[in-house]
Amino acid sequence: MVVMYDGSRFGGWQRITGESLRGRVKSVQGYLEAVLSACFKEDIKVIGSGRTDKGVHALGQVVNFYSSASLNLDEVLEELNYSFEEGIRILRMYEVDGTFHSRYDAVGKVYQYRILNEEVPSVFLRGYTYHVPYELNIKRMQKAAALLVGTHDFRGFSTFRKDVNSSVRTIYSAKIEEVITSFGRELKEIVITIEGNGFLYHMVRILVGTLIEIGMGKKEGKVIKEIFESKNRSLAGPTVYGDGLYLHKVIYK
Amino acid sequence: MVVMYDGSRFGGWQRITGESLRGRVKSVQGYLEAVLSACFKEDIKVIGSGRTDKGVHALGQVVNFYSSASLNLDEVLEELNYSFEEGIRILRMYEVDGTFHSRYDAVGKVYQYRILNEEVPSVFLRGYTYHVPYELNIKRMQKAAALLVGTHDFRGFSTFRKDVNSSVRTIYSAKIEEVITSFGRELKEIVITIEGNGFLYHMVRILVGTLIEIGMGKKEGKVIKEIFESKNRSLAGPTVYGDGLYLHKVIYK
Repeated sequence: MVVMYDGSRFGGWQRITGESLRGRVKSVQGYLEAVLSACFKEDIKVIGSGRTDKGVHALGQVVNFYSSASLNLDEVLEELNYSFEEGIRILRMYEVDGTFHSRYDAVGKVYQYRILNEEVPSVFLRGYTYHVPYELNIKRMQKAAALLVGTHDFRGFSTFRKDVNSSVRTIYSAKIEEVITSFGRELKEIVITIEGNGFLYHMVRILVGTLIEIGMGKKEGKVIKEIFESKNRSLAGPTVYGDGLYLHKVIYK
Repeated sequence: MVVMYDGSRFGGWQRITGESLRGRVKSVQGYLEAVLSACFKEDIKVIGSGRTDKGVHALGQVVNFYSSASLNLDEVLEELNYSFEEGIRILRMYEVDGTFHSRYDAVGKVYQYRILNEEVPSVFLRGYTYHVPYELNIKRMQKAAALLVGTHDFRGFSTFRKDVNSSVRTIYSAKIEEVITSFGRELKEIVITIEGNGFLYHMVRILVGTLIEIGMGKKEGKVIKEIFESKNRSLAGPTVYGDGLYLHKVIYK
């Protein structure tokens, strides 16, 4: 399933012990399992391509599950979308080989981060963009972003987790664009799109926090190289809010 | 003040008896009065250009108030926006003549209605658009909308209210456009923009409900003329949700 969800309505991807379908804090995983199990009348467990934190949105999270029933996918998609609360929808559904695993088979991911670069924030984009009221030098940010591309040790751009073996990842592209959104009035956004073979915990948010400080002139672009070499988290920028972050796409062979 | 607010965060414009600043149901008027009074340390009453119903948004509501203090408007605007909750912001502030009245001096208003015309609704635009999953014939809608322009008795397109003297209003323009919004994926919207010298209770929502039924082929365009003549509310379409409605602009001489 390719799933879209509004992260502000869930307490993150990962199943929480004791959560309830109608509860105020529910995980996307727990919610999907509850609705699918009720719908198929069997115990369904779902596997996502990866976790998303509380507040982080998904435009194309990929989720797989196994069911013994013979399903008409078009009908199931319609029925599930009808059963769901407003914050989540299935965009597409495919029958896959029994060996498919949405996490292990993923060869890449694309994340997007939306910065609302306006003096007065939009009342409609709270929770969906990160508001930066300061002037950002997009050229400086683009130059620094180009340094991210390639295979590097991103330890200094992550929050340490014991369960991760290697902090080496490959970034295929890091694009920074100015976009004019029209939501009532015209709003300037800076959208950062990063594609890589995998991402460490908080990595996108720390990369964005660092790029914002570079755009504000608080840091030099060359700090990126220094962080690769020193692996020193304290040289990087802050972990920005999850509100502006979107899991855009998961790539498979 | 030119004020923008997210209607889903308020129980409509009009002050509610006994509401509280932090309460779950608060009016825009009551909220503004509470924050302004606390900020200026005097009892402030505000006058809006008109009421907006529960769920209806404002991109440019105009609000006036009187204060005996000598205010630096730039500073006040910044302080108020800082004090406000996320669902409301002041866009501009002007010092006006003591005789100015945001309701009586308004010579026109522009409303916008956003229809999300997609099979699967967007998880991000719930509350901000009205989801119509059926095919809409925009040409038919545009032709019918042209019949609205001019001075007519709109009684059949309104919910009756005792306090209104005349149901004759002038519509200056009624525009229907197809717009592609990009919120994660590309979404087709149909945006209806109506400008007139004034609007009756529920008038825009009933006009939109009628235009949608014309677009779906459930009604003929000429029903507009029949409703003008008969003043018969039951010939018009349903009162669509307030979620898709925006008070876009208030016009003064």
